[in-house]
Amino acid sequence: MTAVVQPDPIELTPRESAQDARRSQILDAARTCFARSGFRGASMQEICLEAKMSPGGLYRYFPSKEAIIEAIAQDERCGAAELVETMRGTGPLLDRMIGCAMGYFAYMRDPGACELMAEISAESLRNSEIGKRFAKIDDSVRDVMREVLTEAIEKGEMPEIADLDATIGVLQAAVDGIALRQIHDADLSLDRVEPLLRRLVAGLLGMKA
Amino acid sequence: MTAVVQPDPIELTPRESAQDARRSQILDAARTCFARSGFRGASMQEICLEAKMSPGGLYRYFPSKEAIIEAIAQDERCGAAELVETMRGTGPLLDRMIGCAMGYFAYMRDPGACELMAEISAESLRNSEIGKRFAKIDDSVRDVMREVLTEAIEKGEMPEIADLDATIGVLQAAVDGIALRQIHDADLSLDRVEPLLRRLVAGLLGMKA
Repeated sequence: MTAVVQPDPIELTPRESAQDARRSQILDAARTCFARSGFRGASMQEICLEAKMSPGGLYRYFPSKEAIIEAIAQDERCGAAELVETMRGTGPLLDRMIGCAMGYFAYMRDPGACELMAEISAESLRNSEIGKRFAKIDDSVRDVMREVLTEAIEKGEMPEIADLDATIGVLQAAVDGIALRQIHDADLSLDRVEPLLRRLVAGLLGMKA
Repeated sequence: MTAVVQPDPIELTPRESAQDARRSQILDAARTCFARSGFRGASMQEICLEAKMSPGGLYRYFPSKEAIIEAIAQDERCGAAELVETMRGTGPLLDRMIGCAMGYFAYMRDPGACELMAEISAESLRNSEIGKRFAKIDDSVRDVMREVLTEAIEKGEMPEIADLDATIGVLQAAVDGIALRQIHDADLSLDRVEPLLRRLVAGLLGMKA
């Protein structure tokens, strides 16, 4: 999920490859700092310390905290796109949707992933530049869901839905809520959540669980 | 929801009443600041400015930012307890549960309420002292839900549930997720969310919507 978009390995010179490793090292350190102290709370100095790099070294890769956040948003966008593609596949609609959500929950259990997501959602509410950057990810997830559900309705896999846009919003909201809560709620282990999410989604979409 | 617990009005001397008003003024200002800058980002100085009070005046009521946060947590606890009581009432189980959630969504639309909730959830994930303070509210909501659902099962209002604890967690998670998202998602107006939430809850609890 967090893989940096890299050029094809065969085209890498040793220098480029070392640069990419350095870049990843900075982004990993920044994620740790943002998860711990928030986007606003974390300083470039803290990120340098965490990455074990000098400010001079770090600034050669990223001129500002904003540039680091932008790079993380870009990585998240790629990760989300990859995950959401699993919703298209073949097989029953409900299996595909639940599979995608479970993949998201598993990803959120990576150290720091969920704290970062909570930070992102706080920034989205503030409608800040940081928030807007991440809101685009949400829009693209929504677009794929609309396509997948519209196709399923056309194929007769699920009944017509009166308010597709709000249904998608409620679905996203419920899944995001579970993704956040599962981290600190011991009752919400992946195996216990799965059958419940299936009932929830089936109820919402008017399908059999 | 945000009302400060006050002594009975007839027992108020004018001085106590002025003190309470002052206290409310500080807490309202602090909520605005926390919503804007976060618990960590907001300073006592910022809160003084927002409350239009001198530091000396403010410190007479609250010796520290922690004391202010504790008072807000206490207010939130009272508000949540009041709201969650509506789940007990009479009438069909689904109506009571949806009514309670809709009241929560409406409250979250108050200026700053949702930003504060996002801040609280970020702090909960960090397992900080602030987070722990607010986690108690969540526990008490869960306790009431367990009572209400257990009684409904005993009365035959809903079918037996295999995993009640996880079901309650998923329900809380979905409702929290919707509460957050409805603020910035134009599709999630209260009137459009209500029928969808009903389908979602009915599906999860194995009831007819």
